[in-house]
Amino acid sequence: MAGWYIEKGPESDVAVSSRVRLARNLKNFPFPPRMSREQEEMLIRDIRNAALDKDNNFASNLAFIDITGLSPIDRQALMEKHIISRDMAESQNRCGVLVGNDEKISIMINEEDHLRIQCMFPGMQMDKAWKLCNDMDTYLEGKVEYAYNDDYGYLTCCPTNIGTGMRASVMLHLPALTMTGYIKNVLEACGKISVAVRGLYGENSEASGNMFQISNQISLGQTEGEIINNITGIASQLIEQERLLRKELYNQNPYRFEDRIYRSLGVFSNARIMTSEEAHKLLSDVRLGVNMGIIKDIKIEMLNELMILIQPGNLQKYAARPLNPGERDIIRAEIIRKMFGNSNT
Amino acid sequence: MAGWYIEKGPESDVAVSSRVRLARNLKNFPFPPRMSREQEEMLIRDIRNAALDKDNNFASNLAFIDITGLSPIDRQALMEKHIISRDMAESQNRCGVLVGNDEKISIMINEEDHLRIQCMFPGMQMDKAWKLCNDMDTYLEGKVEYAYNDDYGYLTCCPTNIGTGMRASVMLHLPALTMTGYIKNVLEACGKISVAVRGLYGENSEASGNMFQISNQISLGQTEGEIINNITGIASQLIEQERLLRKELYNQNPYRFEDRIYRSLGVFSNARIMTSEEAHKLLSDVRLGVNMGIIKDIKIEMLNELMILIQPGNLQKYAARPLNPGERDIIRAEIIRKMFGNSNT
Repeated sequence: MAGWYIEKGPESDVAVSSRVRLARNLKNFPFPPRMSREQEEMLIRDIRNAALDKDNNFASNLAFIDITGLSPIDRQALMEKHIISRDMAESQNRCGVLVGNDEKISIMINEEDHLRIQCMFPGMQMDKAWKLCNDMDTYLEGKVEYAYNDDYGYLTCCPTNIGTGMRASVMLHLPALTMTGYIKNVLEACGKISVAVRGLYGENSEASGNMFQISNQISLGQTEGEIINNITGIASQLIEQERLLRKELYNQNPYRFEDRIYRSLGVFSNARIMTSEEAHKLLSDVRLGVNMGIIKDIKIEMLNELMILIQPGNLQKYAARPLNPGERDIIRAEIIRKMFGNSNT
Repeated sequence: MAGWYIEKGPESDVAVSSRVRLARNLKNFPFPPRMSREQEEMLIRDIRNAALDKDNNFASNLAFIDITGLSPIDRQALMEKHIISRDMAESQNRCGVLVGNDEKISIMINEEDHLRIQCMFPGMQMDKAWKLCNDMDTYLEGKVEYAYNDDYGYLTCCPTNIGTGMRASVMLHLPALTMTGYIKNVLEACGKISVAVRGLYGENSEASGNMFQISNQISLGQTEGEIINNITGIASQLIEQERLLRKELYNQNPYRFEDRIYRSLGVFSNARIMTSEEAHKLLSDVRLGVNMGIIKDIKIEMLNELMILIQPGNLQKYAARPLNPGERDIIRAEIIRKMFGNSNT
């Protein structure tokens, strides 16, 4: 695999990934719900040509994937890698995505909006994600005409995205905040300042494995820089709180703490059947152990990769055939053992 | 460690060890409850001299341990290795034991009877245990005069041991009989034919880790050969039943079976805190896995050794200091990891 998850970013003991996405629509096309097949195809062609043009410094790193032609498993696998959204994975429209070869950038065409430019970096790297997004946006703006209004900013299909069209989010691993129950206070506080907290796969997805996505709820009335700074600031506070609580929990009873971590590692790396729910739970403990220096010789990048590989779509890609849930639990356990070098046992 | 448990015996997939013990008393001493300190010491001296005499082919292999002078921890450690009985470990009398250097033979002096000659072999080797016991008994009978009656045979302190003075027992690992619940039928059937079923440490000890000790309840009215054949026969039947059930359980759902085994191995070899009860439970699963060829690279002899090392007395010998139960749980986990080569993690 090649992607953001096989690199280690700053603050990676708590921050898993940073993501920025911009919603954009083109002036000379109707909004997606009102587009004909022909218009959808025309839009794909136009954006593809613009993005892959030799003028584009990124062009050599971009590849186009025609989502319409993909099987449900392939679509799901791309969704699990955050290359496309759940909406696009399930879309009946003509749609596609341009992906950078390191999977840090993707441009979805014909999602909820005409364009969704998205950049993802490991750890706490909001500034880099924003810069790459902005560069691509600026380039495309020179090639096509965006739907833009001087009062409202960028026009989007759903009014919640209007203005900057930006969503900035950080994925945080917050096991200590969760164990101690303080996460409830965090969720409440975030709600009051219009910051959304979601699970691993965006809206309506549950926080499995103590993974929380922190993002701005409003894209209007703030500049892009303000949104980035706001989310970065909140994430930094949560990172500090999480670190303090981890130390506190450890110092309360180091043996019991390490026992929990190592039991999870033992089951995770030895089981023959493992549900997705249990895998996320154990992976969270193992990640915590690695990040606290309790478990050595395991890299956080490997755990990031595993987090994606154990999802249903990627499991089925690995097995190269459709799997029912029972089969998935067996293949999931097999992949985990393989990653831990336990495949022969 | 040097003992029966570091060798692999026949039928070791189910039979852990075979043991024969003979109860003997000397004619010219009162029975133990009525002995004076001086008589106790005189008896120890007489037996010691007789056993260590150059006439005795075993003499060079025997060492005398003065139990009276030992700390409670050292006594407990010997008891856990089955070298002395629980009674002797707790005895207030002058007492001692002669032990073979491979720990296969031990002669307790001033236990419930004047002498308890005991031989223990790995796996199903009742005949060898009986032969060694008999040889030692014959030798001693030439040196001292046993209390013997033509009608009753050897006289013993407790009437249940009168006659041959023999108890023949086999320790069996019966996880499949236990999992399926058939063990209840076995216990009932054994009761009807006067065969006792006990736990790991004899009378009143519970069957922890699915270990069951099968032994004759009556020592009168049967020859030694008949007792040995009877217990051997019953053990062989149980071994066959256990093997069939293991295969059946495995075939019902191989993945679920292996999953159970490997999860137990994962926890057993990674935990940082482990109670005795949990250790026996997990050890039983790991033993089953090794014996069914599911777990490779782990030797059954190592598990036998571990079964003894994780007992409270041996744990405290290992730590070289008294340990409270909480500390024992930590040292137990440490020893287990060490044996599995996980001590650095």
